[in-house]
Amino acid sequence: MDNAQGHPYTGVASAPMTFRQQLDTACARSRSLLCVGLDPDPALLPVEDVLDFNRQIIAATHDLVCAYKPNLAFYEALGLPGLRALEQSLRFIRDMAPGVLLIADGKRGDVGNTAQAYARALFETWGFDAATVNPYGGRDSVEPFLEYRQRGVFFWCRSSNPGAGDLQDLVVASGQEQGQPLYQVVARRVQAWDRYENAGLVLGAPYPEELGKVRALCPETPFLIPGIGPQAGDLKQAVRLGTNAQGRRAVIAASRAVLYASRGTDFAQKARQAASALRDAINQVLAQEGHPW
Amino acid sequence: MDNAQGHPYTGVASAPMTFRQQLDTACARSRSLLCVGLDPDPALLPVEDVLDFNRQIIAATHDLVCAYKPNLAFYEALGLPGLRALEQSLRFIRDMAPGVLLIADGKRGDVGNTAQAYARALFETWGFDAATVNPYGGRDSVEPFLEYRQRGVFFWCRSSNPGAGDLQDLVVASGQEQGQPLYQVVARRVQAWDRYENAGLVLGAPYPEELGKVRALCPETPFLIPGIGPQAGDLKQAVRLGTNAQGRRAVIAASRAVLYASRGTDFAQKARQAASALRDAINQVLAQEGHPW
Repeated sequence: MDNAQGHPYTGVASAPMTFRQQLDTACARSRSLLCVGLDPDPALLPVEDVLDFNRQIIAATHDLVCAYKPNLAFYEALGLPGLRALEQSLRFIRDMAPGVLLIADGKRGDVGNTAQAYARALFETWGFDAATVNPYGGRDSVEPFLEYRQRGVFFWCRSSNPGAGDLQDLVVASGQEQGQPLYQVVARRVQAWDRYENAGLVLGAPYPEELGKVRALCPETPFLIPGIGPQAGDLKQAVRLGTNAQGRRAVIAASRAVLYASRGTDFAQKARQAASALRDAINQVLAQEGHPW
Repeated sequence: MDNAQGHPYTGVASAPMTFRQQLDTACARSRSLLCVGLDPDPALLPVEDVLDFNRQIIAATHDLVCAYKPNLAFYEALGLPGLRALEQSLRFIRDMAPGVLLIADGKRGDVGNTAQAYARALFETWGFDAATVNPYGGRDSVEPFLEYRQRGVFFWCRSSNPGAGDLQDLVVASGQEQGQPLYQVVARRVQAWDRYENAGLVLGAPYPEELGKVRALCPETPFLIPGIGPQAGDLKQAVRLGTNAQGRRAVIAASRAVLYASRGTDFAQKARQAASALRDAINQVLAQEGHPW
């Protein structure tokens, strides 16, 4: 299903890198666990043109990040011109920062040939390195994504919104999983489904306790952690509890805090300052924990 | 949030119709519970051009259906040209069959301003009358959709794939919902969230027992029922157990059985025959149950 050459820009001709290796490489190269979410919200954009905005943000931050995470909803809301801007933004990143991973944040999930079409859309048509996926449909609904063995599949596990617990925290009564909340069952299932070590989990930073519990269940799985707030406390906990024993495998995602650090003409410069401060704050925690780059 | 004029093509100038009224009207007008899924799969298409294919299918079937349901994955997999074909297909349906509802099958779901962007994309940018949504994120993650009070929001509840039960059938141990499988908890939650009577549920036809149980929980909620097989038994059960007490409020969706009834030059004619046969079979069950049009 997947091509044999792994990440198209790694230039490695022999064995393709696993997704975990690609992620480790992207983090080591940038000395950063920071991922910038590219969420062009018309109500907040300091310039009119989305592509122009993205290009300036990318040019200002690409050496500070391991990944970019375009949030597909914002491009879809702009219709075909938005999706064209997404396509051109992806090309711009590949040209300017070939070592940076591209994560499609779309939380896709559906059955059978529809799931196959989504996987094809994200990994072939758009060429993303990884995607966020919703696990509600069960194993066969997510296998078409996982079958792209060199691409990362981050399963939505525990979100950071007020209603996250409505379903995700429901305690399960069934046999082996008795007494566990649904999000932990999801984490266990994902681990069982992960034959090619290309599965990851999406876990909101504002719930450090949940983050730590899932890290204990899945010691080496890459985590995608959105929702880091302006408080350094949140960030510190997210880094401490979200990383593996070597202080890696966590992708800490910030969107608005970077993109809209300023809404004036200095937005790119301020975005760089914000991204740099976040990377430094993350790296400070890593160093304190004994895991410098 | 939503416009005040309801369905843009109903021409009703006074009170806007609720989504349930729009659905009842669309079904009564066509005397049909049938919805055709527009899933252009390149491996199966009898003609090269997606828009040409859709136009011929729509021209051949529009008087037989209450709704069309484009499956977004298939358009996304074709990239920008696919999405352009979707846009033009929607316009073609509005022109040719203004009384037919348009359901976006995308199973979207995400938190906060992302959910808002998805709702804006589907209901404003693309102009759909209804959308399928994934409930995993909890109440606040779906409210941006429900706040479009005249648009339908079909929540993915119990799917028809082999792994559907992996999460959806997990028995919940918590207080009030003790002993219930997750999909029934979802159905109950959706009913509680449904302040504007615009929520629906997606339930796979191959599981008639589950369909009947959820209908007992939600007597008047519109159901979107994909997965009707070639066996009349499936269809009969789906219609009997999926409709409300008046034999309505079920949207029975068929895709491949209609679209690819023939892969020759007679595909549109054969699609009409297949759609007509399905509508007639559904209506026969309705008549047997005492609910003719």
